[in-house]
Amino acid sequence: MFDEIAILAPGLLGASVARAARHYGAAQRTTLWARRPEVRLQLQGQAWCDRVADTPAAAVQSAQLVIICAPVDQIVPLVQQIAPALPPGALVTDVGSVKGEISRLSHVALAPRHAFVGSHPMAGSEKTGWEHGRADLFKGRTTFVTPLPETDPAAAARVAAFWTALESDVATVEPDAHDEIVAHISHLPQVLASTLCASLAKREVRWRNHAGGGLRDTTRIAGSDPKLWKTILAQNRDEVLRAVRAYQEELHGLERALANRDWFEVQAILERGRAYRDQFRPIP
Amino acid sequence: MFDEIAILAPGLLGASVARAARHYGAAQRTTLWARRPEVRLQLQGQAWCDRVADTPAAAVQSAQLVIICAPVDQIVPLVQQIAPALPPGALVTDVGSVKGEISRLSHVALAPRHAFVGSHPMAGSEKTGWEHGRADLFKGRTTFVTPLPETDPAAAARVAAFWTALESDVATVEPDAHDEIVAHISHLPQVLASTLCASLAKREVRWRNHAGGGLRDTTRIAGSDPKLWKTILAQNRDEVLRAVRAYQEELHGLERALANRDWFEVQAILERGRAYRDQFRPIP
Repeated sequence: MFDEIAILAPGLLGASVARAARHYGAAQRTTLWARRPEVRLQLQGQAWCDRVADTPAAAVQSAQLVIICAPVDQIVPLVQQIAPALPPGALVTDVGSVKGEISRLSHVALAPRHAFVGSHPMAGSEKTGWEHGRADLFKGRTTFVTPLPETDPAAAARVAAFWTALESDVATVEPDAHDEIVAHISHLPQVLASTLCASLAKREVRWRNHAGGGLRDTTRIAGSDPKLWKTILAQNRDEVLRAVRAYQEELHGLERALANRDWFEVQAILERGRAYRDQFRPIP
Repeated sequence: MFDEIAILAPGLLGASVARAARHYGAAQRTTLWARRPEVRLQLQGQAWCDRVADTPAAAVQSAQLVIICAPVDQIVPLVQQIAPALPPGALVTDVGSVKGEISRLSHVALAPRHAFVGSHPMAGSEKTGWEHGRADLFKGRTTFVTPLPETDPAAAARVAAFWTALESDVATVEPDAHDEIVAHISHLPQVLASTLCASLAKREVRWRNHAGGGLRDTTRIAGSDPKLWKTILAQNRDEVLRAVRAYQEELHGLERALANRDWFEVQAILERGRAYRDQFRPIP
């Protein structure tokens, strides 16, 4: 599919892309660049890494597809940095959790010579770090591909085909639509898990020793990296605020029903929640 | 340990108690009673069930320990119903998620001839039904044992020893203290998972097809039985309201920080959440 792909700043997602590209034959060669020299040394020993470059520009010099896996606030600076070094026809994508601003600024940085097409695989783990990468991380999971209206459709199609080759289910939406969706189905759950833990931390912390499966599952993602998530929430602030406020109304409705001993309404809210949850599609 | 135990209204928990009692040698014989005749027929074929009784009174007639596994609103009526049929020295416990009212009314129904000692194993699943029972369901999980100040300490110790024999970690607390704890670590997470789904159900429901592991885990327990949970929330209304209101303050704090672009405060809340979550004890 691609002769060579370059993966910049690989963590869990970047290492998984490299492993999956190898496993599914989506790339002949993989070149990686990591910010920290000790990580670059470690990557040299990995079977799924053909070449390690010392700079982002050196990494992309013969790549047909560049996948930037840095935190969301470092994606645009990397795009600007590699722009002069990209070979003719090279495509650039990323795996960031927010797409509006990144897509617009990256487009400006690369056009008209190169195309930027944002990506966001809905896969991951509270375990970050390239050591946890897995070739099957994207299998059966949605990857959003987010071209702007002005993006070359052929470029968007090639990026989508790459994720499809990794057995991911591609959903193509505009960047702002993406940001509204993930504010609800990803950023809001993160906010709830983190604030639930932050709230419980103010009571007797030893209570957590009695946690059953419910509290454990509901709060698993509260173990995620706070700095990374602060950056995601900052980039998607407006949509996250809207989602949080809509949620607060729902919670307030339940609080009011409890306060009024309106058990019919309490059960109705629980029923609506279950009806929604029961229709999640199975994952492989 | 016990020659004979009787398990009334077995679902997931009751069937798991029967299997575990057999597996760990905590009871020589198990007698079960289920409300529905077709369930009684099915139970007769199970290796971990020695006898099936047609009525609660018949089930308890030679039991040393009776474990009532009915929904919380049906526990006290069952205690009152079996009281005249209990043999001398028999103990009665339950597995209900709320303990204050149940413990007080059951104590009154049985004293002074018999002792009621409430139990609440922090184990379960959104999958209810006796078919899902497992001998290792309680292993390494907390079981609350909740004697009243007036409960015979020897009775409380025997009930605690029973759960310890099933490899559960017993925590002995007064019923009202229990209800405060579970309002926070069990009922509040249920409220958040259900209201998150109820809130998302008001937006584009197809978004859920893109759900990653975060939304899936955070909302798993929203699949639980709404009728059962309405009853639990009704019995623990005051404590749940307090926990919900404390949580609303925390969430409001994050909303305010987002609105003010106070990223230092946003990160601080996420850090507090992670610090709390990271100290959950591992489960076997």
